[in-house]
Amino acid sequence: MQQQNLIDCYKRIKPYIHNTPVLTSQLINEISGASLFFKCENFQKMGAFKMRGATNAILQLSEEQMQRGVVTHSSGNFAQALALAAKSVGVAAYIVMPFNAPQVKKDAVLGYGGVIIECEPTLLARETTAKKVEYEMGATFIHPSNDNDVILGQGTACLELLENYPDLDAVFAPVGGGGLIAGTALAAHYFGKNCKVIGGEPFEADDAYRSMQSGKIESNNTTNTIADGLKTQLGDKNFPIIQQHVSYITRVSETEIMEAMQLIWERMKIIAEPSSAVALAAMLKEKEMFKNKKLGIIVSGGNVDLSNLPFVR
Amino acid sequence: MQQQNLIDCYKRIKPYIHNTPVLTSQLINEISGASLFFKCENFQKMGAFKMRGATNAILQLSEEQMQRGVVTHSSGNFAQALALAAKSVGVAAYIVMPFNAPQVKKDAVLGYGGVIIECEPTLLARETTAKKVEYEMGATFIHPSNDNDVILGQGTACLELLENYPDLDAVFAPVGGGGLIAGTALAAHYFGKNCKVIGGEPFEADDAYRSMQSGKIESNNTTNTIADGLKTQLGDKNFPIIQQHVSYITRVSETEIMEAMQLIWERMKIIAEPSSAVALAAMLKEKEMFKNKKLGIIVSGGNVDLSNLPFVR
Repeated sequence: MQQQNLIDCYKRIKPYIHNTPVLTSQLINEISGASLFFKCENFQKMGAFKMRGATNAILQLSEEQMQRGVVTHSSGNFAQALALAAKSVGVAAYIVMPFNAPQVKKDAVLGYGGVIIECEPTLLARETTAKKVEYEMGATFIHPSNDNDVILGQGTACLELLENYPDLDAVFAPVGGGGLIAGTALAAHYFGKNCKVIGGEPFEADDAYRSMQSGKIESNNTTNTIADGLKTQLGDKNFPIIQQHVSYITRVSETEIMEAMQLIWERMKIIAEPSSAVALAAMLKEKEMFKNKKLGIIVSGGNVDLSNLPFVR
Repeated sequence: MQQQNLIDCYKRIKPYIHNTPVLTSQLINEISGASLFFKCENFQKMGAFKMRGATNAILQLSEEQMQRGVVTHSSGNFAQALALAAKSVGVAAYIVMPFNAPQVKKDAVLGYGGVIIECEPTLLARETTAKKVEYEMGATFIHPSNDNDVILGQGTACLELLENYPDLDAVFAPVGGGGLIAGTALAAHYFGKNCKVIGGEPFEADDAYRSMQSGKIESNNTTNTIADGLKTQLGDKNFPIIQQHVSYITRVSETEIMEAMQLIWERMKIIAEPSSAVALAAMLKEKEMFKNKKLGIIVSGGNVDLSNLPFVR
């Protein structure tokens, strides 16, 4: 994908998204020994960067496709993002969710105007149900991360960050399905001044780290992580971009994720998801390498279950 | 106090404080039926508006007084605010705290460079210990809320808000010791265009509401509220200002406070104290009165104990 693709994408989605604020924390700068600029996608519409990619993917559809709607299977942020993005463009969104998904997640999708299609709680059931919706409704399937239009959309967060802070030495982003990190890497490549991109990944869901080592897409051995947005698998569209433009991936422990999350909450007074804390945790783990550097941190989202938080004394 | 006092105060403290951001939420606007502008003092230095008043009070001391330091008794935000404000001006701060105050609060004061003097956990012990420090160290006692310089300092949050949004119809602020609401009322009186000020207070600590009814300072009958910053008593310096310039005080239940707090956390993705949620809760309770109005909400602070949160499903 070329620089112009990213520029076109940004122009396309701009009316539908927030240019989210960038926050700093003197105390976290002291702890990290660097100057950190937090791109707050937790303040994005529906509370996560996923709104960007979903909007771009929908706006790239033909008029006929738009009339037939879009479909995805997700119980996370992408379900809400696709529902809201579709609603703001005036398109129907069918969201395939396991029948036992938490009611709070179903309510969020319904609140954004999505149509929920329930299925058995297996990957196979999700995929076949989505296929059925594609076939019966003529809806276009949109993948949460392994889709070029989605990747470009996610990259616009870093694009905005570099518009405000053009001389960042590196940007840290979490790695889940790979859409955000791939888009971030494209934005840093085309719009940064020798700006590195580093991925943060939980040890407990380290498919991207191992894929970078082996040179082919590996699967997660475990997904026992608090960073629930990062349990997903890399794909064949984003992995080549990651191989080419991401410097490396740093793995972090569950304790490191929780400590980084607590720092963000307590010191910045903002609500960030555990997945977002993974990016800060990776930076803190590598802090000897980045002394006095100017670094971006993509705070990917802020959708958490307040009745089930990990903070303990 | 005159308009010029507030202008002078703002010029004096400006280098030491953040001009905090103002956030909005489309969803909370829909729920409230009005346009709300949240003045985010949770992003203030040390996490609360108290930094403003503490800084102003210290900067008004003579050089000799500054050399001898300041003293207060508090285990809440004012302890941290006085410690940090004193540190940034280069003055010693003695903080009288009950020996059984939570370690996290002691650590915060120590982290900001304050000197903790422990005492028995009674109001009498606090007061006599503070008197002793005044006498022995020559330190100047600064009251957290019943002090004209503190009141003026707290008013600068509303002053900044009105600089950005000069045509607010009303501003809502929580009422604890009365410093914030009195300062807010002065700012609205001198800088607003017929801008009302409304106080929010828990039913469980409604001394200000009852004082407004009776015309004299009443005491709290109970202080069994989650809004721990609002358990304190009105004073003889702030009460006359409140009587003169605050339209009325709306009382809210503990459930209303928790629901408002959850709205702020979930929808705005920011961490606000229960005391801050009292201002939004009061607005929501009065929403029929404020349809389509432009309203300010003072989010007073964001210092919460993350390991002890009230959210339940």
